[in-house]
Amino acid sequence: MSTPTTVVGIDLGGTTIKAGLVSSDGRILYQTKLPSRAAEGPSAVIQQIAAAVRNVADNGGTPTIRSVGIGSPGVVDDNGVVKAPPNLMGWDEIPLAAELSHHFPGYRIVVENDANVAAIAESRFGAGKVHPNFLFIIWGTGVGGGIILDGKIFRGPTGGAGEVGHISIDYNGPDCNCGNRGCVEAYIGQRYLSQRTAERLRAHPESSLLGLVGGDFAKIEPMYIAQAAAGGDRFCREMLVEAGMLLGVAIAAVMDTIDLRISIVGGGVSGAGDLVLRAAEESARSRVLKPLRPDIRVIQAELGNSAGLLGAAGLVL
Amino acid sequence: MSTPTTVVGIDLGGTTIKAGLVSSDGRILYQTKLPSRAAEGPSAVIQQIAAAVRNVADNGGTPTIRSVGIGSPGVVDDNGVVKAPPNLMGWDEIPLAAELSHHFPGYRIVVENDANVAAIAESRFGAGKVHPNFLFIIWGTGVGGGIILDGKIFRGPTGGAGEVGHISIDYNGPDCNCGNRGCVEAYIGQRYLSQRTAERLRAHPESSLLGLVGGDFAKIEPMYIAQAAAGGDRFCREMLVEAGMLLGVAIAAVMDTIDLRISIVGGGVSGAGDLVLRAAEESARSRVLKPLRPDIRVIQAELGNSAGLLGAAGLVL
Repeated sequence: MSTPTTVVGIDLGGTTIKAGLVSSDGRILYQTKLPSRAAEGPSAVIQQIAAAVRNVADNGGTPTIRSVGIGSPGVVDDNGVVKAPPNLMGWDEIPLAAELSHHFPGYRIVVENDANVAAIAESRFGAGKVHPNFLFIIWGTGVGGGIILDGKIFRGPTGGAGEVGHISIDYNGPDCNCGNRGCVEAYIGQRYLSQRTAERLRAHPESSLLGLVGGDFAKIEPMYIAQAAAGGDRFCREMLVEAGMLLGVAIAAVMDTIDLRISIVGGGVSGAGDLVLRAAEESARSRVLKPLRPDIRVIQAELGNSAGLLGAAGLVL
Repeated sequence: MSTPTTVVGIDLGGTTIKAGLVSSDGRILYQTKLPSRAAEGPSAVIQQIAAAVRNVADNGGTPTIRSVGIGSPGVVDDNGVVKAPPNLMGWDEIPLAAELSHHFPGYRIVVENDANVAAIAESRFGAGKVHPNFLFIIWGTGVGGGIILDGKIFRGPTGGAGEVGHISIDYNGPDCNCGNRGCVEAYIGQRYLSQRTAERLRAHPESSLLGLVGGDFAKIEPMYIAQAAAGGDRFCREMLVEAGMLLGVAIAAVMDTIDLRISIVGGGVSGAGDLVLRAAEESARSRVLKPLRPDIRVIQAELGNSAGLLGAAGLVL
């Protein structure tokens, strides 16, 4: 069987399903969006995914589609069963690949965890193209990860590998939603970082951040912190450098454990830019074992919001 | 080529070379010891290894030996080059496998990092026989590790994987020799644990530990702490439970990152027994992500001092 030249990629989220027709060289030839209807339970979501695939097949101008790749939240096992995705109601354990096979008999359907999918996207089409081995980190609301070894996703024995956001960087640190303490996510996940910044801002009336959010502490988020930092605000620069330093502690733990050198960081907060990634790189380099230091790099992801679609397509390309 | 039934295993240490004839079912048929002569530099050590192999061949009663496995300190690359072993003077980068091939032309010679070798031993012949995937931890002077995936050692891209002793469990914690801060080794490595116990002992005159070491704080070591704990000493029990808890923090980080459930712990300090391993297990279980919790186990290694020999043999069996 020759490699198909176009496939469907599906990026399944808690509110939206993105679907696209993707060529083997990573171009999105057509794309569309549907609501996930997650509140209506698994079968509604599966119907929506099927509708999205049909929409792409009907409008993509390629009648020969036979391969669908899907990025899903949650742990995904080797048979395409999705387990306990955080943002999908009632999805304790759903055999998503098998369910979709009923809709599309004869199709090749592959499901993978969404952070792993984004890692695959960067490996095939983005900042990871030249790096056969790297840790991918998605830094947004939470901190997720995917591990690429020898150009392929490393899933671990049951498909759960890469949960680097729950590495504790202080065993006595703040409580994390996951039940652990001091997880790096509990320091630098979007909400935690915003809260910590808001708390400290009271001692920094000189910061331009307060003006940017119209005096409303509840509106503080990494986008504004980054904006103030870019304008030279010292307090906001310090908050971002600290966040990068903390991420670097977890990165160093992974580098020493798996023998990696490269980290590629995507997700909303990574958009805060060079300041935060340089801090992460410096922190990781100073903390890993000596033989690793010269090659430690923390690199910005390249694919942004398209990573989910492209990586899902990459599952079947 | 059929699998050889007996091979030579070499356990290279900073002071001693252990050598043995090992059968494919993990029995040590003959063994001997030679001084490493590490102070005289690499070529003296290589001569000693060659002498050890000849000694085993001459005295083991098996003239057909053609395979030698060697466990060495330091990072070992895919070509059997040993890099920067901590206890061998002047070994910046030594092509150990190639050097020994000059002494034994036609032999199959495989060199591997010593912690990885001990992990292989537990996997083939010890506590890991029933576990295809586990983290092996060697807990002695330092804290080292080896990762077994699908019954095979996971070496990482350059052979350096498994350095879990340098996972920071507190980014502001005590300085570690490696240059990082708060490494789990800097809390529970033999010397660090002994020092911390000595410091706190001053506030616990009721402890039986002081009598065990004849009033000499410098003599405190995990063996005596364990002995006092076994006798019911509350202070020493607390020290061991804390050490286990701290190890569990690092174990949890590895389990979440690689998607593992089982840790097998060997080395001198693990001999402190059930108390410390139960504390490590409880700590790791409470800290990993929920789907992993039911299966988290921390198990004592089975092979003790023979792990180095048996695992080295396992490299070529």
